Amino acid sequence: MRAVVLHEHGGPEVLTIEEVEDPVAGPGQILVDVAHTALNRADTLQRQGGYPDPRDRDVEIPGLEYAGTVAALGDDVTEWSVGDRVMGIEAGGCYAEKVVTHARQALPVPDGVELSDAAAISEVFLTAWDALVVQGGLTSGRWALVHAGASGVGTASIQIAKAIGARIAVTCSEGKMEACRELGADLVLERSPSDWASELAEAVPDGVDVVLDVVGGEEAERNLRAVAVDGTIVQVGLMGGASAPITIGLLLAKRITWIGTTLRARPLERKLVLCRRFLAEVVPLFESGALRPVIDSRYALDDIADAHRHMESNASIGKILIDL
Amino acid sequence: MRAVVLHEHGGPEVLTIEEVEDPVAGPGQILVDVAHTALNRADTLQRQGGYPDPRDRDVEIPGLEYAGTVAALGDDVTEWSVGDRVMGIEAGGCYAEKVVTHARQALPVPDGVELSDAAAISEVFLTAWDALVVQGGLTSGRWALVHAGASGVGTASIQIAKAIGARIAVTCSEGKMEACRELGADLVLERSPSDWASELAEAVPDGVDVVLDVVGGEEAERNLRAVAVDGTIVQVGLMGGASAPITIGLLLAKRITWIGTTLRARPLERKLVLCRRFLAEVVPLFESGALRPVIDSRYALDDIADAHRHMESNASIGKILIDL
Repeated sequence: MRAVVLHEHGGPEVLTIEEVEDPVAGPGQILVDVAHTALNRADTLQRQGGYPDPRDRDVEIPGLEYAGTVAALGDDVTEWSVGDRVMGIEAGGCYAEKVVTHARQALPVPDGVELSDAAAISEVFLTAWDALVVQGGLTSGRWALVHAGASGVGTASIQIAKAIGARIAVTCSEGKMEACRELGADLVLERSPSDWASELAEAVPDGVDVVLDVVGGEEAERNLRAVAVDGTIVQVGLMGGASAPITIGLLLAKRITWIGTTLRARPLERKLVLCRRFLAEVVPLFESGALRPVIDSRYALDDIADAHRHMESNASIGKILIDL
Repeated sequence: MRAVVLHEHGGPEVLTIEEVEDPVAGPGQILVDVAHTALNRADTLQRQGGYPDPRDRDVEIPGLEYAGTVAALGDDVTEWSVGDRVMGIEAGGCYAEKVVTHARQALPVPDGVELSDAAAISEVFLTAWDALVVQGGLTSGRWALVHAGASGVGTASIQIAKAIGARIAVTCSEGKMEACRELGADLVLERSPSDWASELAEAVPDGVDVVLDVVGGEEAERNLRAVAVDGTIVQVGLMGGASAPITIGLLLAKRITWIGTTLRARPLERKLVLCRRFLAEVVPLFESGALRPVIDSRYALDDIADAHRHMESNASIGKILIDL
């Protein structure tokens, strides 16, 4: 099969397309013909050598998600038939024409969603829903704050919050504010260095119940100030810096819970539990039309380096897809 | 009644004993004849003006816990009879001969525990159990790390961990290490600046599942390094400093949950739920003898200033009690 292989780490030019051996589905696994994959910020970090694949494979193929059709079943698989439309997350290996996954980790492409759009769902909607709802406890009536509102995770967060009856404030760069409003964000704030925190405090004086933060760095302290008493901050990224001085006293004074999390390195059993719950609670929201994938652009596999350059230009709104 | 009143904030000399009006039990409340109260670090902070009583009373009486007997019942109280032995926590007002509390917040003094010892139970065992077990998820087999192992919360933590089949490491000053060993701590480490973190990493290479920290400051970063993947840090105090530079990246890499918490400012309904659960899960452990109050010393009410001086000398092991 054709795949993107990393022989060294560096700029987009290290993304090499070559022929590699097909993976084989073992017991409990399925082989997927990948029709589309998508970019995540983690991919650019991995390309630069900063976020290694936890699976420690001989051939390093990036790519955290896929949409495609079931090509073959391993032993003991009863959930799927060859030809079924599937989508899902993996810890790596999805920039490839074929991928093997656990049969209970794969998700059905929701009815009404085109296969060509489904690769824009798994990683960002799982991340946003897990962070906001599962770990953050967001419910109807409560307020969320999500940074990078126009990113893949941000656009998923806005839709999820509105679909469950919650309220949501987002930060983003000035040029992306209108897109966030159109997706339904209740409050759209210009990102730092603009003083979003004061604007938020005026609109939501008791503070927000849940913060989903992909930035970290200097935003960490502002998050502690923005969150309500008994609120939760879920840290899913650190694009703005991995270290910062913080006022630990705010944790105590407001009884804050600050959770660090990533999907990628979680053990299999926890991914399976999460995916089965996502199937029950979130997939129906795509079928009803309450949620929809937000797609910025599409690239051919041969243009993977350009796709990475586009992500790193910070110009995208929603997901950057790759057609295989 | 006689009570300790704060007319100003400062050193132990501002603790003034005077006659004040008796409190009156309203509907759902009981009036307690306080036989004994106890010191907490929060009391010395409050005396210095740094930790105000959240209840905003006209007369500021410190004191977070009591043991005594029921003196009168408000309307609609069916749980208690006059003369019953009770103990419990309040947000303030317990350095006094009488205190009013909600009938469902008061706890029965466990059978087999002297009333004169019971004032050493509520605050530290509730704090330690809530932090380690309720919020931290400590269970049999898992490892806890607790700083200030010889403090009231520390001595309670050691006993609770051993009573539920967990393992516990504590840090403390050199002179208190033997006392922590005698209480059953599995690993007793000399506190910073001694390199407790390396010693702990050698003994518990996968890291500890739960950290209970009353120190903060520079220990915050060491806690993030000491905790296991998917571990929890519960921050219940900041004796070592309220601000610190931290590596947020550790939160993500290990999927750490960092919870700030205090008992004192929680709303009534959450205190009631916690106290009823403590009654079911922890009070029986005093009745069986698995847990016992650890008492450092006793002072008469008139000697309250000396009691505060003793706490601030950092020489105590366990609780400092006040007889009324």
